[in-house]
Amino acid sequence: MASEDRFRKNFINSITGFKSVALIGTKNESGTSNLAIFSQIFHVGANPPLIGIVFRPNVVARHTFSNILATKYFTINHLTEDFVNKAHHTSARWEGSEFQHCGLSEIYLEDFPAPFVGESQLQIGCSFKERLDVQSNGTHILIGAIERVNLIENAIGEDGFVDLQQLGTLTSAGLDAYYATELVDRLSYAKPGHKPTSIKKS
Amino acid sequence: MASEDRFRKNFINSITGFKSVALIGTKNESGTSNLAIFSQIFHVGANPPLIGIVFRPNVVARHTFSNILATKYFTINHLTEDFVNKAHHTSARWEGSEFQHCGLSEIYLEDFPAPFVGESQLQIGCSFKERLDVQSNGTHILIGAIERVNLIENAIGEDGFVDLQQLGTLTSAGLDAYYATELVDRLSYAKPGHKPTSIKKS
Repeated sequence: MASEDRFRKNFINSITGFKSVALIGTKNESGTSNLAIFSQIFHVGANPPLIGIVFRPNVVARHTFSNILATKYFTINHLTEDFVNKAHHTSARWEGSEFQHCGLSEIYLEDFPAPFVGESQLQIGCSFKERLDVQSNGTHILIGAIERVNLIENAIGEDGFVDLQQLGTLTSAGLDAYYATELVDRLSYAKPGHKPTSIKKS
Repeated sequence: MASEDRFRKNFINSITGFKSVALIGTKNESGTSNLAIFSQIFHVGANPPLIGIVFRPNVVARHTFSNILATKYFTINHLTEDFVNKAHHTSARWEGSEFQHCGLSEIYLEDFPAPFVGESQLQIGCSFKERLDVQSNGTHILIGAIERVNLIENAIGEDGFVDLQQLGTLTSAGLDAYYATELVDRLSYAKPGHKPTSIKKS
C-alpha cells in the first residue's frame, strides 16, 4: 500500500506540469527563522502584484504556514543548480532553522522582517493578504502581496520581461525532479487572423 | 501609461517563476467547443487527485470559466514545441471554436463530455469540484478532480514518475515565453543529517 501511495503521488504530481519551485523564508513569533522548499507558487495578479501558495494539509512545511499567519511576512527565493541539493534538504523534518542546517545564508534587507536566501539570484519580499481553504481536501491557499523584488538590474528587459533562463532559475516536476530550461520562443500578442510571430530577442 | 502597464505585467508575471502551461478544452451549454491556453494550473492533492486553475478577472479566457461552471467538465492538454504557435493563438479574441480557428484537432474519448486536443501527448479529463474567490483582486480559482489521464504507457516510470522532458512538455514564463526543459537531477527523499543524493535514472 505504501508503494501504491508513492506511485500515485509521483504520478499525479508529475502530470500537472512544471512548477515554479522556490524557497520560502519566514520567522516565527519567537524570532526563529524557517526555510522550506515549495513548488506550488502561482501568479494571481500584476496590479496590485499578488502571488498564491498552496499548502497541503499535514505536510512537512506546516511551519511556513503558521509563521506567515503569525508574523504576516515571508520571502520567495528562486533556485539555481548551484544550491539545489541544499534547497531540497530543507524539506526534511528539521528542528530549528533550516538556514543553518542546510548551509544557506540567512540575510536581511533594510527593514524587511522576513529572511532572504543570500545564494538566491531573485528574491521577493511579500506580506500576507488573504487565506482560502479548499473544502475538497483540506488544502490551504495563502495570497500574498509583493512588497519588494531584489535582482540584478540588467536581468530586466525593456518591456519588463525577466528571462529566468539567463538567471538560472530552475523549475520542478513531480516530487523530486529539478529542471533547467531553454527558451523555445517568445510569441507576439495573439490576434484573430494573424499567426503569432517570434518576438525573441537574440 | 499603457507601456507602464505592459512593463508591470511582464515583470510581475516573470518573477513568480516557471508555470505549467496547457490548453483547456470545454463546451458551452449549446455544445460549442472552446480551447484556451492557461499558465496557472497547479497541483492541489494526489488522493483524491485534484488540480487548481487561476482565472484572472476580465481576461480573454472567460469563456472557459463560464463553460466549466455550466457544463462541469474540462480537459487539460500539455503543449509541445510542434504546436506552441497554434496553442498561443487560442488566446486571441475569437468568435466560435478555437479548435477550428487555430488548426488543432478536437477529439472525444469514450463518453467524456469535454474535448481533448489530438496533438497533445498528455491529456487529462477533469470534473468541476469547487470555486474559490480571491477577495484581494477579484480573481477566481476553480478546483477540479482528475477523472482520466491519457498518455503513452512507457512514459510512466516504475515509481509513477512521468518525465515531462521526454514527453516534450513545455513550461512558460511571463506573458508570452515558452521553454523546453532539461533534467538537472532527481533527489532522494530528504532526511535530517543525510545530504540528498541523486536518484536520476540514466
